[in-house]
Amino acid sequence: MDFAYDARTEELRTRLTAFMEEHVYPAEPVFALQREQAEGDARWSAPPVVEELKAEAKRQGLWNLFLPGEHGAGLTNLQYAPLAEITGRSPHLAPPALNCAAPDTGNMEVLSEFGTEQQRKQWLEPLLAGEIRSAFAMTEPDVASSDATNIETRIERDGDSYVINGRKWYISGAMNPKCAIMIVMGKSDPSAERHRQQSQILVPRDTPGVDVRRGMRVFGYDDGDHGGHAEVVFTDVRVPAENLIGEEGGGFAIAQARLGPGRIHHCMRLIGMAERALELMCRRATDRVAFGKPIAEQGVVQEWIAEARVEIELLRLLVLKTAWLMDTVGNRGAHTEIQSIKIATPAAVQSIIDRAIQVHGAGGVGQDFPLAELWAAARTLRLADGPDEVHKRSLARRELKKYV
Amino acid sequence: MDFAYDARTEELRTRLTAFMEEHVYPAEPVFALQREQAEGDARWSAPPVVEELKAEAKRQGLWNLFLPGEHGAGLTNLQYAPLAEITGRSPHLAPPALNCAAPDTGNMEVLSEFGTEQQRKQWLEPLLAGEIRSAFAMTEPDVASSDATNIETRIERDGDSYVINGRKWYISGAMNPKCAIMIVMGKSDPSAERHRQQSQILVPRDTPGVDVRRGMRVFGYDDGDHGGHAEVVFTDVRVPAENLIGEEGGGFAIAQARLGPGRIHHCMRLIGMAERALELMCRRATDRVAFGKPIAEQGVVQEWIAEARVEIELLRLLVLKTAWLMDTVGNRGAHTEIQSIKIATPAAVQSIIDRAIQVHGAGGVGQDFPLAELWAAARTLRLADGPDEVHKRSLARRELKKYV
Amino acid sequence: MDFAYDARTEELRTRLTAFMEEHVYPAEPVFALQREQAEGDARWSAPPVVEELKAEAKRQGLWNLFLPGEHGAGLTNLQYAPLAEITGRSPHLAPPALNCAAPDTGNMEVLSEFGTEQQRKQWLEPLLAGEIRSAFAMTEPDVASSDATNIETRIERDGDSYVINGRKWYISGAMNPKCAIMIVMGKSDPSAERHRQQSQILVPRDTPGVDVRRGMRVFGYDDGDHGGHAEVVFTDVRVPAENLIGEEGGGFAIAQARLGPGRIHHCMRLIGMAERALELMCRRATDRVAFGKPIAEQGVVQEWIAEARVEIELLRLLVLKTAWLMDTVGNRGAHTEIQSIKIATPAAVQSIIDRAIQVHGAGGVGQDFPLAELWAAARTLRLADGPDEVHKRSLARRELKKYV
Amino acid sequence: MDFAYDARTEELRTRLTAFMEEHVYPAEPVFALQREQAEGDARWSAPPVVEELKAEAKRQGLWNLFLPGEHGAGLTNLQYAPLAEITGRSPHLAPPALNCAAPDTGNMEVLSEFGTEQQRKQWLEPLLAGEIRSAFAMTEPDVASSDATNIETRIERDGDSYVINGRKWYISGAMNPKCAIMIVMGKSDPSAERHRQQSQILVPRDTPGVDVRRGMRVFGYDDGDHGGHAEVVFTDVRVPAENLIGEEGGGFAIAQARLGPGRIHHCMRLIGMAERALELMCRRATDRVAFGKPIAEQGVVQEWIAEARVEIELLRLLVLKTAWLMDTVGNRGAHTEIQSIKIATPAAVQSIIDRAIQVHGAGGVGQDFPLAELWAAARTLRLADGPDEVHKRSLARRELKKYV
Repeated sequence: MDFAYDARTEELRTRLTAFMEEHVYPAEPVFALQREQAEGDARWSAPPVVEELKAEAKRQGLWNLFLPGEHGAGLTNLQYAPLAEITGRSPHLAPPALNCAAPDTGNMEVLSEFGTEQQRKQWLEPLLAGEIRSAFAMTEPDVASSDATNIETRIERDGDSYVINGRKWYISGAMNPKCAIMIVMGKSDPSAERHRQQSQILVPRDTPGVDVRRGMRVFGYDDGDHGGHAEVVFTDVRVPAENLIGEEGGGFAIAQARLGPGRIHHCMRLIGMAERALELMCRRATDRVAFGKPIAEQGVVQEWIAEARVEIELLRLLVLKTAWLMDTVGNRGAHTEIQSIKIATPAAVQSIIDRAIQVHGAGGVGQDFPLAELWAAARTLRLADGPDEVHKRSLARRELKKYV
Repeated sequence: MDFAYDARTEELRTRLTAFMEEHVYPAEPVFALQREQAEGDARWSAPPVVEELKAEAKRQGLWNLFLPGEHGAGLTNLQYAPLAEITGRSPHLAPPALNCAAPDTGNMEVLSEFGTEQQRKQWLEPLLAGEIRSAFAMTEPDVASSDATNIETRIERDGDSYVINGRKWYISGAMNPKCAIMIVMGKSDPSAERHRQQSQILVPRDTPGVDVRRGMRVFGYDDGDHGGHAEVVFTDVRVPAENLIGEEGGGFAIAQARLGPGRIHHCMRLIGMAERALELMCRRATDRVAFGKPIAEQGVVQEWIAEARVEIELLRLLVLKTAWLMDTVGNRGAHTEIQSIKIATPAAVQSIIDRAIQVHGAGGVGQDFPLAELWAAARTLRLADGPDEVHKRSLARRELKKYV
Repeated sequence: MDFAYDARTEELRTRLTAFMEEHVYPAEPVFALQREQAEGDARWSAPPVVEELKAEAKRQGLWNLFLPGEHGAGLTNLQYAPLAEITGRSPHLAPPALNCAAPDTGNMEVLSEFGTEQQRKQWLEPLLAGEIRSAFAMTEPDVASSDATNIETRIERDGDSYVINGRKWYISGAMNPKCAIMIVMGKSDPSAERHRQQSQILVPRDTPGVDVRRGMRVFGYDDGDHGGHAEVVFTDVRVPAENLIGEEGGGFAIAQARLGPGRIHHCMRLIGMAERALELMCRRATDRVAFGKPIAEQGVVQEWIAEARVEIELLRLLVLKTAWLMDTVGNRGAHTEIQSIKIATPAAVQSIIDRAIQVHGAGGVGQDFPLAELWAAARTLRLADGPDEVHKRSLARRELKKYV
Repeated sequence: MDFAYDARTEELRTRLTAFMEEHVYPAEPVFALQREQAEGDARWSAPPVVEELKAEAKRQGLWNLFLPGEHGAGLTNLQYAPLAEITGRSPHLAPPALNCAAPDTGNMEVLSEFGTEQQRKQWLEPLLAGEIRSAFAMTEPDVASSDATNIETRIERDGDSYVINGRKWYISGAMNPKCAIMIVMGKSDPSAERHRQQSQILVPRDTPGVDVRRGMRVFGYDDGDHGGHAEVVFTDVRVPAENLIGEEGGGFAIAQARLGPGRIHHCMRLIGMAERALELMCRRATDRVAFGKPIAEQGVVQEWIAEARVEIELLRLLVLKTAWLMDTVGNRGAHTEIQSIKIATPAAVQSIIDRAIQVHGAGGVGQDFPLAELWAAARTLRLADGPDEVHKRSLARRELKKYV
């Protein structure tokens, strides 16, 4: 149970922090302006400044840090976690700048672990190079997708092809013109055992029958710079049988495999977001005067600041422990911890950001501070990968089993 | 302490409910589409369907219900409150349809109570007719405006004119091309006693020196259909001296006078929003199945539903009591209650809507349900008219005075 | 929906307030001392000062105020509710002083409404005179009694007698030597329809086979002055058949009937407790200095005070509305409201008292202030008559039925 | 940042767990009975079974584990922390059984670190042997003692003696006839610099002028088995000058030094209490049936179980990190963490126990389960060593200093 940052981690943290200060934070206002002015295809693409940041990050070797093994930077989860935290301080710029943004990260992990040589060559390589983007199509509007067995999209074998029919939404990144490939989760065999009905398959976005209909909103945001969150309809979409990832019926297992690292990434970025919000809250409270004294001297605001600091310290340790467990005993041995951080982190960070908003007054809900947008991201993560309640239920059942 | 709905209220509730069902709810999808497609000036205007609703409401006599006295429908606060609740169920359509939308309501009250005959003729009449819109310019980006004595905008006498200089933001409605008039709050005499430094003055939006710069966002929403929330810069804006409302130094008192009714309207609409959210939560929970049973049978969801119902019952009674107090003993005698509903209602309703969102999964944060936008409105009302904390502090000090 | 206090209520409030100030509050330290020194039977009896208060209250006509109809003071629920609130300010002294203490109140209501002439003569009359005390034996240690169908105690007909066997606990008042009679709830016909299996029967406490074993604690309190909370074992307890209350199988319905008024009494007393706690919190905060200023100037404490005041105002209105509904449409029509106040009041009042404790430092948890004991009472009311969760579940199901 | 349990820790955990199972848990009902029956002096003494446990623990070498350095078991904070957690599962028996109970622990630490040879010989040795008990007299009824500068008890030099005058309360252990020695905190020089006014001095409990007046309660409990919580009045109490601990004016610094380890002990025991409560909650939920299914299948109860598990995991890691920091960088370097665990742990554990109580129904508040008494202990720790709010305020001020 040693979570200390080792030498490589410390070195990367120093370099990454410098990159944030020299390149990312100064790019934030440029980014905001470019988004504001984007029209047409550009509305759903990363603004130009992100491409500049990518080039610089790649040059500095701050690239694909998330990916363990030979295809990526080769860091452990425990080594990458503190870096993910730092990128969370500017979550719209830093993760894509480092080619470490969801859902590409999960897709690259899946291709790296389960992809055939051909699949890796065709899709993993350009993803690793940051030349294309990708999407992961799982959530469906018509069913409670948190229960994966509810999924209705069909993936049916027909000769040398699979034919896909179904409707998905909140497919992040899929509005992006650079999004070239989608991993689609669907049912290949509704008659199989409950967790063997699903398969995952690669569907190039330009395949006939793929209809990327519209961008779903998150509160009022379209997250256009991330490629939005698309509603996508698949009508008789035909792809070669070799596009299947892993084996038929293996979709649920692959989905589980991607969850562990994904949650660590999300949670560490959330902690970075919370640190940013706490910093903004402290600065604002120090600068503003109301009723004769700085807001920072108001007892209620001090209580918020203290609770935020305590909460962050609590969360960070548990996420680091989870990363360490993943590295040492694997996904399965870290099951309780992976669920725990998913339950604890988004809710707590949402609350910290909410209070930072309150300290900012009207400004807190608007576009001149990053807080409202950070809040929306944290709030949404209480639903993404299944609502908190599903995870609590599952964790409780495991706890109860100790006593029967 | 009799809050029963009298015959006139019941009759209006019946008619208003019918109007909602026959006209407003069916207009919601039309409205959404028109907003989505709006471009140019239309982005900051009410969509055409709202004008149709206005015509119908006027025809039915469901018009200016908020305004007591001879210029309006002549209802008491207690009579109007249950009607405001009903309009809150569709807060983007119903209030403007009935010409009962903020900030016009407050502005019409002020003109009705404090305006000169000339001011009423020029501005109140077209407002009452629904021909123009208006704004109220109080909040400033550079100071904690919850402490009204912080306000820095200057209103200086210069011969027969006043000259206004300052910067405001979150000026709701001011982006609307139909917004013809603004009531501006500023300092006319910084050397006067603390609550006599401020004045309110009428500034036509087309006066030279008025620069409506940009629309501020609220969690990603621009509220364009309401005329947005503008940043407005006033540079040597010169208006005739007779544009002053009431007397010089009377701005704070006028601001206080508008608060009481405004809070009742806001709180009753919030209760209507909560009822809508609860209804949506129940319907969704009934329709969706997860892990083998309808979500409505999940204990946690049942707890949310029960708590929402209890909270709504608690809040409604206190708001009705406040309305009744306003009618019987006036603004001053209802001081504690007015603060209490401002403290209690937005926070509780925000929480109810948040849970309704959670029950809707990804859909809850998007544009296919009204929940995310309702949430943003409720959240913002914890800041509008001063953050909750300011009101709690003030209420506590009054409570403590009982014991010294 | 008129909750105004009428002339009789106002007159009684004035007299009761004077009684509290002249007799009850001054008796509190005497009471504490007498309890501290009580030994033997006196440990489970009201201290002598309570008998003095009873005599005085009776003399002043402040007696049996809770009981509507000819046998009592004849007040409506809405008239009695504000009086119950006042007694809640000193819940160990005022309710017994006025002969308005649970469980006697519920028992007298039941006897008054469902008792035969003989039963009323034998038990109601001495109860109304304050000469004896009584108990209500429902909760059982071995089953979740919140689900009344779980109850296992048997009431079996045998000739002209009923024979009772079972184990009960938390039977309030039953340790009191003056407790002469118990109403026992048990199963008379396990094969009947679910809500027709139970009966209620009168069991004199000195009947052979009744074993009052020990006093159960509530946190560390034994509530000896109330006659404690007994574990009682019934072994072949034989009583005449005419001791049955109402008809066989009517036990569940009688239990339901007593709930409505009981909850209003409990909730109004809780509100009185909250007012007392708020007063103590304000006084203490004003008196104490920490870190250079009175605690009353700490923002966090001000927030607690404001939230307590708001919460009390919210709760009181809903309880009054419930009382008014009970008076006008009866138990059944007030179902949702009766559950709502049970859900809302104990939890909120517990939280108010908790904060008052926090303001008192170590003193708050001890015997020199009434707060810790008030807290324990409020906390326990989240369990008494069924845990909050059971009521929320039931209320939610009724809410959901609107949409199916 | 390595919190792994090393070999010695693991070995001690195994032995301690066995001791709990073989000796402590079986002694709990014996202990309860002996407390119930205790009279006279025995009411304020550990019941006989505790002395038996002490003898066994000493025999097994599970003795003075808390004390680092040569005088004790020599464990680091990180080694002792997991053992303290285990003792927290039975907090009335295990800590005294191992001679690891507050306030003796803190007193032994102080004597070990700051005591003269003579003081150690006279008081530390019999304390280490478990022959006598001790008390720490700091809190005063008349001032907010959380602000140590408020303390009013005087310690005045008079020739070769110090003379002590003042009133203290909540002096844990001081009712115990075996309590031989008290460390008293008071003001030796009110004119000195704010944190140099206080001294600590050894006062044998039998010194003339020491009046141990009465046992203060904690939610009804007198904690007699721990020697209660006494009100103690010091009237012209004269002790030799060599009884001073450390130097005159050093009292505040000594008090600070004892805080770090004390908080780790308290927090780890709290975590053990939370584990016990969670276990009881799970068992009860599994055993009881309500409304047709085991309570363990109720969604709300599952949510409580999950949240408890997550909270415990979060807290334990932060306390372990704090222990590790204390070992590696000392009290001062662990300042933020020491405050953080004090802020986070009691509140969270109180809430976990509260929910376990709720699952137990009426039984939860009584003496047949340990929950109500555990709750009272956790609640009180939100006040002991200063209320949460004081620590939050202090932590926030340090956080804010980063930005000025």
